[in-house]
Amino acid sequence: MKDKRLGVALIGYAFMGKAHSNAWRNVASFFDVPAIEQKVLVGRDADAVAEAAAKYGWAESATDWRSVIERDDIHIVDICAPGWMHAEIAIAALQAGKHVLVEKPLANTIAEAEAMTAAARAARTRGVQSMVGFNYRRVPALAMAKDLIAEGRLGTVRHVRAAYLQDWLSDAESPMSWRLRKETAGSGALGDIASHAIDQIQYLTGQSVLEASGVLKTFVEQRPGPKGMEDVTVDDTAWATFWLTGDMGASVEASRVATGQKNSLQIEVYGTDGALTFNLENLNELNFLDATLPVREQGFRRILVNEPEHPYMDAWWPQGHVIGWEHTFTHQIRDFLLAVDSGSAPSPSFEEGLQVQRVLSAVEESANNKSTLTVVDHKSFATEGA
Amino acid sequence: MKDKRLGVALIGYAFMGKAHSNAWRNVASFFDVPAIEQKVLVGRDADAVAEAAAKYGWAESATDWRSVIERDDIHIVDICAPGWMHAEIAIAALQAGKHVLVEKPLANTIAEAEAMTAAARAARTRGVQSMVGFNYRRVPALAMAKDLIAEGRLGTVRHVRAAYLQDWLSDAESPMSWRLRKETAGSGALGDIASHAIDQIQYLTGQSVLEASGVLKTFVEQRPGPKGMEDVTVDDTAWATFWLTGDMGASVEASRVATGQKNSLQIEVYGTDGALTFNLENLNELNFLDATLPVREQGFRRILVNEPEHPYMDAWWPQGHVIGWEHTFTHQIRDFLLAVDSGSAPSPSFEEGLQVQRVLSAVEESANNKSTLTVVDHKSFATEGA
Amino acid sequence: MKDKRLGVALIGYAFMGKAHSNAWRNVASFFDVPAIEQKVLVGRDADAVAEAAAKYGWAESATDWRSVIERDDIHIVDICAPGWMHAEIAIAALQAGKHVLVEKPLANTIAEAEAMTAAARAARTRGVQSMVGFNYRRVPALAMAKDLIAEGRLGTVRHVRAAYLQDWLSDAESPMSWRLRKETAGSGALGDIASHAIDQIQYLTGQSVLEASGVLKTFVEQRPGPKGMEDVTVDDTAWATFWLTGDMGASVEASRVATGQKNSLQIEVYGTDGALTFNLENLNELNFLDATLPVREQGFRRILVNEPEHPYMDAWWPQGHVIGWEHTFTHQIRDFLLAVDSGSAPSPSFEEGLQVQRVLSAVEESANNKSTLTVVDHKSFATEGA
Amino acid sequence: MKDKRLGVALIGYAFMGKAHSNAWRNVASFFDVPAIEQKVLVGRDADAVAEAAAKYGWAESATDWRSVIERDDIHIVDICAPGWMHAEIAIAALQAGKHVLVEKPLANTIAEAEAMTAAARAARTRGVQSMVGFNYRRVPALAMAKDLIAEGRLGTVRHVRAAYLQDWLSDAESPMSWRLRKETAGSGALGDIASHAIDQIQYLTGQSVLEASGVLKTFVEQRPGPKGMEDVTVDDTAWATFWLTGDMGASVEASRVATGQKNSLQIEVYGTDGALTFNLENLNELNFLDATLPVREQGFRRILVNEPEHPYMDAWWPQGHVIGWEHTFTHQIRDFLLAVDSGSAPSPSFEEGLQVQRVLSAVEESANNKSTLTVVDHKSFATEGA
Repeated sequence: MKDKRLGVALIGYAFMGKAHSNAWRNVASFFDVPAIEQKVLVGRDADAVAEAAAKYGWAESATDWRSVIERDDIHIVDICAPGWMHAEIAIAALQAGKHVLVEKPLANTIAEAEAMTAAARAARTRGVQSMVGFNYRRVPALAMAKDLIAEGRLGTVRHVRAAYLQDWLSDAESPMSWRLRKETAGSGALGDIASHAIDQIQYLTGQSVLEASGVLKTFVEQRPGPKGMEDVTVDDTAWATFWLTGDMGASVEASRVATGQKNSLQIEVYGTDGALTFNLENLNELNFLDATLPVREQGFRRILVNEPEHPYMDAWWPQGHVIGWEHTFTHQIRDFLLAVDSGSAPSPSFEEGLQVQRVLSAVEESANNKSTLTVVDHKSFATEGA
Repeated sequence: MKDKRLGVALIGYAFMGKAHSNAWRNVASFFDVPAIEQKVLVGRDADAVAEAAAKYGWAESATDWRSVIERDDIHIVDICAPGWMHAEIAIAALQAGKHVLVEKPLANTIAEAEAMTAAARAARTRGVQSMVGFNYRRVPALAMAKDLIAEGRLGTVRHVRAAYLQDWLSDAESPMSWRLRKETAGSGALGDIASHAIDQIQYLTGQSVLEASGVLKTFVEQRPGPKGMEDVTVDDTAWATFWLTGDMGASVEASRVATGQKNSLQIEVYGTDGALTFNLENLNELNFLDATLPVREQGFRRILVNEPEHPYMDAWWPQGHVIGWEHTFTHQIRDFLLAVDSGSAPSPSFEEGLQVQRVLSAVEESANNKSTLTVVDHKSFATEGA
Repeated sequence: MKDKRLGVALIGYAFMGKAHSNAWRNVASFFDVPAIEQKVLVGRDADAVAEAAAKYGWAESATDWRSVIERDDIHIVDICAPGWMHAEIAIAALQAGKHVLVEKPLANTIAEAEAMTAAARAARTRGVQSMVGFNYRRVPALAMAKDLIAEGRLGTVRHVRAAYLQDWLSDAESPMSWRLRKETAGSGALGDIASHAIDQIQYLTGQSVLEASGVLKTFVEQRPGPKGMEDVTVDDTAWATFWLTGDMGASVEASRVATGQKNSLQIEVYGTDGALTFNLENLNELNFLDATLPVREQGFRRILVNEPEHPYMDAWWPQGHVIGWEHTFTHQIRDFLLAVDSGSAPSPSFEEGLQVQRVLSAVEESANNKSTLTVVDHKSFATEGA
Repeated sequence: MKDKRLGVALIGYAFMGKAHSNAWRNVASFFDVPAIEQKVLVGRDADAVAEAAAKYGWAESATDWRSVIERDDIHIVDICAPGWMHAEIAIAALQAGKHVLVEKPLANTIAEAEAMTAAARAARTRGVQSMVGFNYRRVPALAMAKDLIAEGRLGTVRHVRAAYLQDWLSDAESPMSWRLRKETAGSGALGDIASHAIDQIQYLTGQSVLEASGVLKTFVEQRPGPKGMEDVTVDDTAWATFWLTGDMGASVEASRVATGQKNSLQIEVYGTDGALTFNLENLNELNFLDATLPVREQGFRRILVNEPEHPYMDAWWPQGHVIGWEHTFTHQIRDFLLAVDSGSAPSPSFEEGLQVQRVLSAVEESANNKSTLTVVDHKSFATEGA
């Protein structure tokens, strides 16, 4: 049985490595999927990757990705390394017969991306699969948006208005990093976040871009590095207007200096028979306007995409318990464990639980008697419970 | 090393068991906590509990909770069994020296709750800890709300307006269940959801209820059971008005027939110097009004509780990537695995990734040339990528 | 022709007098109504009422309401005087054969209200009409809400959740006034604002209250008057729970110390087949959930009640131009007149208008040429226009 | 005294004529402005303009604008005629020494606009004023936005994101009109609504456009006219990207086919120290983020621009009573007058007013007695009040 499990190697353990690890660790607890095993986490720093492996649920760690992708017990390679390493690793892995998942963007250059695509095409004929990680396609609200459009609920889509607004570079004193150099990052807001918006526009509508017009801007041209000020060589804001197949227009605005916007991927789709709007900061919601209803009762309806009828959602929690809700329990366990560890009494204590029961009883009694307000046998939290 | 781990037994594997399992499985991947081991999942149906244990990450399963709480390698007992079983299990576990976490409500009767509290008090003197699971105290936005109130940012709190609105019993044809019988559930909306609101009112303000006035109503008095219509013996809507220590008023409205409301725990706190509002359906947000600012610029500010400065949040993702965001990757892995398993090509393919790169290039070129719109070498998704 | 006009007398020229004057001055510019004439404004201070009459469009002013209601050219008496004067004036006017509109609350005591009702009933048999001014029944969104409920779109209404929250008494230093004394105001938040909520609950659903339970509270018990601190003898917060005909429940919370809430009349109606929510601070919007749609696409839809299909709205502006929008022109005329009066150049000047035209031309040229960005012949606003 | 009044002539009585009339009729009831007289309304159809004059409060009507602008008792000419007539009328009026207010856009061609600007400049030296009607500068929330920016509360503005979205041309069957022909309208969404957005961008920031890039699209190329299908020769959607003085970027998207968007002028301003967002569909609100506050408590605050401290607002109603609120009274008067006219009893009747008083009494009694729910002497609305 165990040997039938798919062995997974994950390359990279930073932000994306942490996010992918979480997915590998939990996917089978919610979804019916082929059995997998979190075999090995790969990184350059042996100590750091070993610690990350232990923390994120990987059986082993390693520093040499080449030897890992040769292992017989590895069937899947998940690449979260920086963009300039994607091509080399992905092509090698595909040639070794491993299924490959690679983070977006596919690569830093068109040439690399073309080579990877050729390798993927060849591998596919041998039953070896590959995928690029535009993860927002798996936001349930966006998956549902795609369904509604595909079903014709919007009629013919005429134009899409998209933006991806962040503000983590708004402060001119924020330090230089590899993401701000053209040679390592390829581009700035354009490749990092506008790429998500562009993928969504094409994904949601099934159309592809024919013409593009753009403006790029670097508002903060130098930032402090370890040895003094360095030149920022990528954009921090990008504007683009597109014309797509299907006689459809689209606009994208991407900014890392949009003060107050944290991770605001906004998408609005306007069709002849309806419209949709979405904002990633409220990722459980989709707003849908059905223009075929009587005018009197038309309006954008806020759909909480949280019913078993919605994409992916029957795996999760009862309706209204949005994804993310479950971490209230994770936080609770954290606080409980820390209290146990330190020998202090965690809160809410049983005394606090008892006091709530007494309040509930009082409400019930008051309701039954249509009576005066009932005095509860209360106890101050401060004296006992905390 | 391994023997220093805290062994955990979880009793119950339904809705709450699934949620608690998720927390035990993930807590150490995000937080620095004492090492734990998911030892054993306990339930009455041997096959079902074994399957759940495998799915949720438990090493073993068992059907007899009594023998489990006697095991030396179990240090923590987490009780997700129904309310009428809480007292017996919790008291036994505490007496056996196990730390106990018990789901809310603490018990179905005041007598049971008092016995549990006495056992907890005695155990505490021996360093054995206990806690009742009002998990919403661990919503980061609510934890921050408590901090703001404790810091005096609202001045003196005068009144709290709370509601917990759901609609899963709105349909009169929804079937009878144990939650709708007084003998098994204790009460209806009152104990199940108003209890959360009551706990929050007391938790956030540090005050406790002195007087209570209430109205209870069962709108649907009979529901279909397996053998025909049965009497619903608990409320499906509850209204309560409270007076608390600190000369503070509060109201709670709880309903399971509030059509269109899914899991809407709403809390509004009004003080002399400020106010807070919260809705669990947008659990990453807290609205705060600071009445000490100049009148001209006062307004409820929507704080996305998602910065490292916010409670619990430094463990998670970069700002703006709300909790729940990570499941886009879980869904991605699911779809990838299903494609691998079925031998079909997952999407987005490398071709799709390449096409996005080409669009990005076109934008960049257009920006550099201040030129005409650039024709992109586009490929239809339909023909290749999908 | 002129003698066929209905002559109107308005008694009172404070807040409500100003609001009613505005309505009399404008009603015929938007609606097809019988011709009226703003004959006389009545108040106790001769100079002040004369000034108000000139400002608000009344032909004359007067100080003695008794003589006014005897005039043959007065057909309608609109009473905006304080509550304790309602009964005397209304009864006299009705007996004199005048149609009467009286501000809410109808009176300060039940005895007065009963006498008024008897007078109104008697007058009605003689074709003399009367009305009490619960003006929120004429919010288009609420009128539409009533229509939807009456049409059965919500099925059977089970419960209504209402609140009227303000904060103008939040500051304990706000001075004493007649509204805070029981002998002049009758009650506080209860009569002033909870009354609107109660009227709406009954109006929207067509049910009436059978049972009531309430709590009243005066948080600030003394306030500064001209001669020192005085006792506040009315409530500033009120909570009430109701049971109505039709087996319907309702709750009302009214507060004048709800910091940050300015004029927030909130109403939520939950029925077996749908729900409605409304907030007066967004008075052009109604949120409607239709629970008979497929679950997948249910959600509260924000209806901008601004279409010709909506109550009252065909009299106003094109869709989307919400009521209130028109005052942008009023403000514009104000600024234009002040500039003319002071001999200074108003802004936006023709230069500014020309500059916008040039930008529009540039956009058009850029679009036609698919060309580089076009340099506009711009002029700084600062140098010329302002 | 009367001869010192400024005599006003308004040319045009359609949509804009109605809106301007409303402003002239009401401005002096709210603001301290020089006395004006609504002298004459000018239009081509003698009967229709006479009817409009009577309805909108003008003393006279006329069909020849030339003779009107020669009258000595006319001091102000307000031009709401179509765009192609602006230049001729405005220049003649200015030369006749009349102050001129002209609707936007200033003219349909740059040449006309230049001639008007020259005439305005010459007139200004003689104390004759002129103004173009970008009325949204007088939205209180936008006037306040400008103030905040001018005070430096946003630091240096980096980019502005604007859109003006409507949907009245979304339906391809909507008929042909003068607004859809280039020769009469100049352009489509660009001139009609993008012009407002462009004006706002420049007005709010004090910067002016240097470079422009645009895309225009006509989605519905033919529409039904009285004699069959006709060509639409203006855009119904426009996208533009701008670079402005002050090293500031901006984008504008304008659409008349954005299904579900009614009159949604959206403006977002991002600066180094703060940000602002606004939507005309909620015209009483401004969202302001102050990035100089501690990160923990930053968030967009919804300011209800409705305090005496806010621009224009001390002239209106108490806080929270948003502009537009006053029309609930206008609607009430309408219904009252129609009832009087038809001899039917209007609602709410005094009986209904009395019933509400009884409910209020019951609440008070219940609160005083901490007693059982009180039975109210209720009367059904249906039997008596309606």
